[in-house]
Amino acid sequence: MRNEKTDHLYLQVAHQIEDMIEQDVLRIGDKLPSVRILSEEKGISMSTAFQAYYHLENKGLIEPRPKSGYYVRFTPKSFPELPSCCEPPKKVKHASVGEIITEVFRDFSTQSQLNFAVAVPPIELLPAARLNKSLVQVMRDTEGNGLNYESVQGNVNLRTQIARMSLLWGGTITGDDVVTTTGCMDALTLCLSAVTKPGDTIAVESPSYHGILQLAESFSLKVLELPTNPVYGIELDYLKKALKQHKIKALVLIPNFNNPLGGCMPDQNKEELVKLLEKENIPLIEDDIYGEMHFGKSRPRTCKAYDESGLVLYCSSFSKSLAPGYRVGWTIPGKFKNQILQLKLNHTISSATLPQAAIAHFLEHGRYEHHLRNLRKTLHTQCLRYVQAIKQYFPEGTRVSRPQGGFVLWLELDKNVNTLDLFQQALKYNINISPGRIYTLQDRYYNCMRLTFAQPWSEKVEKGIRKLGELVKGMK
Amino acid sequence: MRNEKTDHLYLQVAHQIEDMIEQDVLRIGDKLPSVRILSEEKGISMSTAFQAYYHLENKGLIEPRPKSGYYVRFTPKSFPELPSCCEPPKKVKHASVGEIITEVFRDFSTQSQLNFAVAVPPIELLPAARLNKSLVQVMRDTEGNGLNYESVQGNVNLRTQIARMSLLWGGTITGDDVVTTTGCMDALTLCLSAVTKPGDTIAVESPSYHGILQLAESFSLKVLELPTNPVYGIELDYLKKALKQHKIKALVLIPNFNNPLGGCMPDQNKEELVKLLEKENIPLIEDDIYGEMHFGKSRPRTCKAYDESGLVLYCSSFSKSLAPGYRVGWTIPGKFKNQILQLKLNHTISSATLPQAAIAHFLEHGRYEHHLRNLRKTLHTQCLRYVQAIKQYFPEGTRVSRPQGGFVLWLELDKNVNTLDLFQQALKYNINISPGRIYTLQDRYYNCMRLTFAQPWSEKVEKGIRKLGELVKGMK
Repeated sequence: MRNEKTDHLYLQVAHQIEDMIEQDVLRIGDKLPSVRILSEEKGISMSTAFQAYYHLENKGLIEPRPKSGYYVRFTPKSFPELPSCCEPPKKVKHASVGEIITEVFRDFSTQSQLNFAVAVPPIELLPAARLNKSLVQVMRDTEGNGLNYESVQGNVNLRTQIARMSLLWGGTITGDDVVTTTGCMDALTLCLSAVTKPGDTIAVESPSYHGILQLAESFSLKVLELPTNPVYGIELDYLKKALKQHKIKALVLIPNFNNPLGGCMPDQNKEELVKLLEKENIPLIEDDIYGEMHFGKSRPRTCKAYDESGLVLYCSSFSKSLAPGYRVGWTIPGKFKNQILQLKLNHTISSATLPQAAIAHFLEHGRYEHHLRNLRKTLHTQCLRYVQAIKQYFPEGTRVSRPQGGFVLWLELDKNVNTLDLFQQALKYNINISPGRIYTLQDRYYNCMRLTFAQPWSEKVEKGIRKLGELVKGMK
Repeated sequence: MRNEKTDHLYLQVAHQIEDMIEQDVLRIGDKLPSVRILSEEKGISMSTAFQAYYHLENKGLIEPRPKSGYYVRFTPKSFPELPSCCEPPKKVKHASVGEIITEVFRDFSTQSQLNFAVAVPPIELLPAARLNKSLVQVMRDTEGNGLNYESVQGNVNLRTQIARMSLLWGGTITGDDVVTTTGCMDALTLCLSAVTKPGDTIAVESPSYHGILQLAESFSLKVLELPTNPVYGIELDYLKKALKQHKIKALVLIPNFNNPLGGCMPDQNKEELVKLLEKENIPLIEDDIYGEMHFGKSRPRTCKAYDESGLVLYCSSFSKSLAPGYRVGWTIPGKFKNQILQLKLNHTISSATLPQAAIAHFLEHGRYEHHLRNLRKTLHTQCLRYVQAIKQYFPEGTRVSRPQGGFVLWLELDKNVNTLDLFQQALKYNINISPGRIYTLQDRYYNCMRLTFAQPWSEKVEKGIRKLGELVKGMK
């Protein structure tokens, strides 16, 4: 068991140095104080001082030089420029990119390729042993050994645990407000099905998660893509105008660490958005699957936290934090709960019994918060490493998003680069990316791509990014 | 391990006696030869003779009287009359019974009530210990301990096993033709979604499984209910006429041991049906979830067995035979495979990893066929017991289906009885039934109900049926 106080101390020191690098007090190439001097200056042990440097080294911000000490290597200031915010679309549109998506995502389990397409947490960082223990325990303890159907609403212990977790994002819900699902996509499917009819128009971010767009298409919905800022999410002013022009039946958004843009809607905007939709009586489906994966000190709140009228249908899952293969997600559907229960009964009867029970047991006994802390730290470090490599290997002028959480980067390349071609070319080198075109139903984002930084940083990953950079350079 | 030869011998003798009862050679009240005389006559051991009588006693056909021997108690001849076949509907209809259904099926796990509504196999007959073993094994052996996403198409070992199973129903498929799903309802959801658009008309049996009707409704489909014979399924002549009058986009049928009617379409009709639909280029979604639960000697074939053009989308699951709570089903979608894969990716990404792997392991090592043999025998016996109790406790004139497999009976009561009222009244006695009205979108079947015989026969079950009979008598 790690000492939480020490944990805190080395991070404090590291953050101070990081701030100095960011504010140009320390510049690229500057030599840092030796470990001994740092420990004396800060009144910390040598080992804590070393830990702080090690942490910064992992993030790619400083580097050790043999027999010389640590030097500043990179500053967040030299991050690539942000991608641009899209123009509002000329019309609501309806097009198909389904086949590309199937090609990109057919196989998640392939280990032979360098997969920058799927947003799966690094399996080696997940608490497999503890989850296994929980699974064996509930297999023994559950009535009928988990062979029985679970109730339609879902495992009662799990729902209680989920209600407790909601405290961290400002929720005041009980287990009875929760309906479990087969992962977050299933939650989105049920919610979208509950609040729309074929032919309705929904509004989404742009670029938007291809799963949401494809779902909308399979439900014969029309989709309005809202201009979305890569840092703070949809433009509320544009939304207000759009609400006057279009009969929008529902919004489907990923406000926290948006996929694929990585932005996080400020809490103030969330509140304003919820009030606005309340006035217009428009449901908001809130996909918060990345909410726990924050790089900053605290978890962002959710739109659901401001929901007083039950119009927000909150969706999430454990697929990004604990066990993708368990397919355990949930929704907190507000006043649509009865419709959701009916739809769930129609679509799948109930969700698998043991995976729900195992995760409930793990949450009760497994130090989930501790696990999340480590996962967040690792992801943050990987994010920085990937960005630095893109800066190094991609052509100048490549724009990159600056996510404060989540798993994904959004890259905007020279306008002559077509990432559909890049996808095909990269496949030849066993590298899988997801082209920007699948994140819209409009005719755009051909020069963009999503790149996930979920795979632990390694020489292989660096080589992959270098190869991608070479391919891009060859396409200009 | 039981001796299969002895097994056979006692059943042979029992069948001979059963035939004599059915042909009125032995009548109700007749005394049977003593165990000793039976053993001498048939040249079998005393214990085999006793086993034969015990088997017939379990089926409710004979009864022992103290110090006197065995007597004939019931003859299949005195089965209640069959329910009538519905008239063709006046028009294609669109109505809602969703709320009743949610009320009937909200909780599968309630143990306190006598649940005649849910068609779940008797858990005590499922091979929990062996499945547990398989689960622990695959949890250890699977890469990432089952935390990883499974591929969209599903576990490759499981798909191979499913392909092997298809030999028994005349299939010639490979694992690559199979897509796994989260239970059979999920398979039906994906298939219906693949072959229809909102506003299309589909044709189904009548009465038809409420899950199919609700699904159709949630997809904004119109539904044509085909007159269905309680013994041999839909009337092909009527279908031919209907195909001329309506633009039918797809059929959704349960040809084997239909739910709720219990009938089984003769193989010849299946072939004729598939040829007919082939000519018209209309897809058939075939729900074969009860196919393995035959009471007769062999498994009926499927429509898929006659499918040469890839128009049959076969759906099934392990929920009725092995593990309802595992939510593992599959589809063999013929030429719609690519659409199904795309829809599955959109709706749930992939199905849970470990439940699929565990069932694959069980099928490879677990003596599935042996388990099924026992399950079928028990279900057959329970079916007879339930029918006898209905005959005894329900008003004269009550009509009952005569299923040759599956889990459910269809009852047709006096036309003045409303089973929606019966459902409410029965709930007060902690008895759960499913009213006939939910098996149609038309305005009918108010005097019908589905009663599952999945719960092992017991005094409690008998009392429950008696109470139902009393309630029905009080409603006339």
